[in-house]
Amino acid sequence: MASVNVARQSWIPWASPAARNLRPAGHAHLTHAFFGTLPRLGSVAETLPRSQIRMVMERAWAMERAGRKIFHLEVGQPDLAPPGVALEACKAALDDPVALRYCPNAGERETRQIIADVLQQKTGCPTALENIVVSVGVNGGITLVLSAIFDVDDEILVPDPFWPNVDMAAKLFKARPIRYRLPSSRGFLPNIEELQRLITSRTKALYVCSPSNPTGKVIPQAMMDSLIRMCMDHGIFLISDEIYGDIVFDKNHFTSCLSFPDMTEAAEHVIWLGGVSKAHAMTGFRVGFVRAPQRVVPILEKNQEGLLSCGVPFAQRGAAMALKVDQSFMENTIATYRRRRDLVVDALAEAGLQVPHRLKPDGAFYMLVPCAPAGPDCSEEVALTLLEEKGVACAPGGGFGREAENFLRLSFATSDEDVLEGARRLAHFLLGRDATQWWPSNSS
Amino acid sequence: MASVNVARQSWIPWASPAARNLRPAGHAHLTHAFFGTLPRLGSVAETLPRSQIRMVMERAWAMERAGRKIFHLEVGQPDLAPPGVALEACKAALDDPVALRYCPNAGERETRQIIADVLQQKTGCPTALENIVVSVGVNGGITLVLSAIFDVDDEILVPDPFWPNVDMAAKLFKARPIRYRLPSSRGFLPNIEELQRLITSRTKALYVCSPSNPTGKVIPQAMMDSLIRMCMDHGIFLISDEIYGDIVFDKNHFTSCLSFPDMTEAAEHVIWLGGVSKAHAMTGFRVGFVRAPQRVVPILEKNQEGLLSCGVPFAQRGAAMALKVDQSFMENTIATYRRRRDLVVDALAEAGLQVPHRLKPDGAFYMLVPCAPAGPDCSEEVALTLLEEKGVACAPGGGFGREAENFLRLSFATSDEDVLEGARRLAHFLLGRDATQWWPSNSS
Repeated sequence: MASVNVARQSWIPWASPAARNLRPAGHAHLTHAFFGTLPRLGSVAETLPRSQIRMVMERAWAMERAGRKIFHLEVGQPDLAPPGVALEACKAALDDPVALRYCPNAGERETRQIIADVLQQKTGCPTALENIVVSVGVNGGITLVLSAIFDVDDEILVPDPFWPNVDMAAKLFKARPIRYRLPSSRGFLPNIEELQRLITSRTKALYVCSPSNPTGKVIPQAMMDSLIRMCMDHGIFLISDEIYGDIVFDKNHFTSCLSFPDMTEAAEHVIWLGGVSKAHAMTGFRVGFVRAPQRVVPILEKNQEGLLSCGVPFAQRGAAMALKVDQSFMENTIATYRRRRDLVVDALAEAGLQVPHRLKPDGAFYMLVPCAPAGPDCSEEVALTLLEEKGVACAPGGGFGREAENFLRLSFATSDEDVLEGARRLAHFLLGRDATQWWPSNSS
Repeated sequence: MASVNVARQSWIPWASPAARNLRPAGHAHLTHAFFGTLPRLGSVAETLPRSQIRMVMERAWAMERAGRKIFHLEVGQPDLAPPGVALEACKAALDDPVALRYCPNAGERETRQIIADVLQQKTGCPTALENIVVSVGVNGGITLVLSAIFDVDDEILVPDPFWPNVDMAAKLFKARPIRYRLPSSRGFLPNIEELQRLITSRTKALYVCSPSNPTGKVIPQAMMDSLIRMCMDHGIFLISDEIYGDIVFDKNHFTSCLSFPDMTEAAEHVIWLGGVSKAHAMTGFRVGFVRAPQRVVPILEKNQEGLLSCGVPFAQRGAAMALKVDQSFMENTIATYRRRRDLVVDALAEAGLQVPHRLKPDGAFYMLVPCAPAGPDCSEEVALTLLEEKGVACAPGGGFGREAENFLRLSFATSDEDVLEGARRLAHFLLGRDATQWWPSNSS
């Protein structure tokens, strides 16, 4: 065995001279000769922060196993059932040998065609199957797109607050997520001048998510159009994550990057992401859709080959059928989440905590609730205290970015009863922390 | 719109001055103002070579659509059926709401426990569920592992010849695949001294695949043990891709990195990859297994969260049940591929082309067949000519590395009839190219 390599040792906490002294003497030889040559992991992966949502969720599960009733407002997992037609199509596919084998990197042609047709019908944007790649969930779609656009130290503009996975994936591809502010004072919406100041020669894309996780806010179409024009001016991609696009509480609020007035001009700059995980309650199917310029699709296909080979064809067939559900399914889904949003807002109001209009979600099933006066990040401590004292699990806002450091993210993707009781307990908890002193008003 | 950025233009072939002259005059404005600011893709992704297997496959499909009978010896897609119990378990899971939702990043605990138990029973290596991550196919497992070990410009030693996806994934994570030679003269086996000369301070891992795609060769256990010791000496990981591990033609040939005599010592250095795609004919389920040191598993889980969130729980349940098939299923699978290997070898021998022992596969369902005298890569041209003249689709060896430039990869994962007729046609084709002049002998 090679002699101990001191340079390599430095990263191994338990191989440091101090740590060695803490080990039983009998292990000294093993420590020296064996632990000293432990293979190294990448520093990028090692220093990636762990998910704060998951941290709260795991604590909540442990309390549940110990017999405690927990109100789960921390996870973005719909409690509704997937469309029956999707489950039937998936079962039928399990009887078709073709659907049990590798499918093309970009997904089965029939599935891509259905997605293209539905997308064109919904947004008016001309879309062919050559524009579509089926990914392993939207997360897998993000991974494909980032793998295609990044060289070392390239940059992507990512909202703050936002679900942290885009940052994680960007870093793993050795690129730099640059956060742009969506302050609560602005109703969690971007400002174009601020964005332009962040664009450098290394910027490859602007990432937006509407309706947003974690804010539930919708980017108005006029603002979306301006963002697209800005991306065209700067020669960067607009990556629009519309996985919550079907869950908008006021029908007139529907917006999409694909509803830009002149898509012929914009099409080369816009990458749309969507899927069936949220509105169709099919998170476990791991089927996402990417609509990209036709020159980009072959690169996404090639990278899918290198990273994953392909997705699961029988799950893709279920997802394709889900897109054909009748309107009543989607109306019921929207009504359910709208009702629950109102349950939360009303429960807080009853306790004297009026939710200002700028914080009230327009879609998705999330809401950021102020949990402390302005100050350094305390959302994790507050979330854990809330869980301990009231049995209510919420995600700490700080896990989504600095702009949410004094917020908790509530997910109302669980039963009406649990949403209501969870919101009541939360209100009681906040009042016990002097919420009336620092709770924001409509004018503040 | 911004003025044209010349530096950015250089990468767009059709925006170069020469290309512009080829465009219709009416498009001049569009070319200048619009194409000049097209968003850039990453040069890493753009320059990644396209799969040569896929190129032949797509040509073969086009000929088939035009009515021509094609003998498909190019794809690693088993023609056998998955175990019935796996399909039943997958269908049953579609009736369980839990299996339709996000599962833990590392896979469902029950699935991980089954994998751990089966692996421990088969190899004797103590394995807990905390060692196991369920990935999206072995390819997705490779992606997870590479995402965890690489910083920019880190290196991994990859066999030549080998399936190109590890190179692709390594490059997308901005690392460098360094190929080590497996020359046909050595029966496609590695040489430890050569390997040691390739190890630098940036080397993170040695990748091996046994039985191998594309050679079908098995690394003997004594050599595997030496490779593990070498990795321990140098403080790097041995990543052992054993996706074909169950398909070994002589039972006594079964080898595994987990059968190393002292796994207590080696466990921190060994990452094992396996799954159900090949021996269980379940490629479309996209379920792979990673067995890694317990200190590495949390990093893999975290990266799975960032890159994909998780796999498909109902597919994972099918895969877990597939591991419990009775011995007769696997015996039949092995017998099938052994018989087809013999069909190929015998058909070539009948034509006067004796396959030297060192080229004869020990496992998997691939074989490299010499297709030209030593010289610069001609395998792609030969493969396309063979397809055109004889209707036999084979993968060009050059797509797997320089050591296979004068070979074709035959996959015998299709029917006995097609394997036999394909091999006969191949033999006839080779004789027409003066194979008797350059065909290797057992001593050459």
